[in-house]
Amino acid sequence: MAKEEKHEVEEELEEVDSTDTNSTETEEIDIPEISEVEELTTKFNEMEDKFLRARAEIANMSNRNKNEREQLVRYRSQDLGKKLLPAIDNLERALATEVTDDQGASLKKGVEMVLESLNVALKEEGIIEIKADGEAFDPNLHQAVQTIPADDDHKADTIVNVLQKGYQLHDRVLRPAMVIVAQ
Amino acid sequence: MAKEEKHEVEEELEEVDSTDTNSTETEEIDIPEISEVEELTTKFNEMEDKFLRARAEIANMSNRNKNEREQLVRYRSQDLGKKLLPAIDNLERALATEVTDDQGASLKKGVEMVLESLNVALKEEGIIEIKADGEAFDPNLHQAVQTIPADDDHKADTIVNVLQKGYQLHDRVLRPAMVIVAQ
Repeated sequence: MAKEEKHEVEEELEEVDSTDTNSTETEEIDIPEISEVEELTTKFNEMEDKFLRARAEIANMSNRNKNEREQLVRYRSQDLGKKLLPAIDNLERALATEVTDDQGASLKKGVEMVLESLNVALKEEGIIEIKADGEAFDPNLHQAVQTIPADDDHKADTIVNVLQKGYQLHDRVLRPAMVIVAQ
Repeated sequence: MAKEEKHEVEEELEEVDSTDTNSTETEEIDIPEISEVEELTTKFNEMEDKFLRARAEIANMSNRNKNEREQLVRYRSQDLGKKLLPAIDNLERALATEVTDDQGASLKKGVEMVLESLNVALKEEGIIEIKADGEAFDPNLHQAVQTIPADDDHKADTIVNVLQKGYQLHDRVLRPAMVIVAQ
């Protein structure tokens, strides 16, 4: 039991010590202790503010990145799609060639199938031909390269003929349609 | 001036009030005030920890999103590119057709140009033909559809013939080359 008694004595001593310290502090440096609480409160509030702003930034980043990813995926085929357009023009031009023998007809059939498969591939990526023939002229979609006088068959501001097909990827114009417009 | 005097009186009253409150606190609830500092310190440390973790998360998100964007851009033409491969196969097959007249030759010339422009477009997006003919067989790039016995001209595990071209987008195989291998 001697050990426990010694322990109790130590605790009493400690209590006295701490009371002494406290009374010294409260008597002599009362203001600094108050300001320590104030200082800590200010520091805490500042840190909480920094944390809340960081959390808001995380939410913003998350939304921003989601949108960026969606845009990247939505328009991912823009560059390759654009580069394929001259190939499609050339295939269509090749199909306009008159053929006279079986080999020519077979070649033409092959080209038709390729053209069809290219158009399907583009459509699956969201790339479609811009409607033009007979449509109202829209400077966002069509480029007027020639005009003819409007008459009963051709109302003013409608497209009379398409010289080169235009294409759009979803809402983005890859290439406007080159058209002749009645005026 | 009556207003200012009143204000001063109010300030004095406040000072007396706050002094009273403090003396009450220090005398009666000395321990709670010490623990208020401890509590605030703990709260501050916890908040600082949350802030630091949020800041680390921001850095991680930023890196992760940068990588994701780079990957999306790097492999953006994977799907459209893959869909174009059968069209290229068909154009190459069409070019194998023998032609006998000028129209056929003109059509063939057109197809050659289209094929060339398609290959250029694919190459610009990082899609290239997988080397196969005469190369060592690599199961990551080549698919063996047939084997022939190795001899002096055809060493074992080398590719003897390519039945269908393979394509890769950077390091990703879009389609392995279909090959005949010597064994």
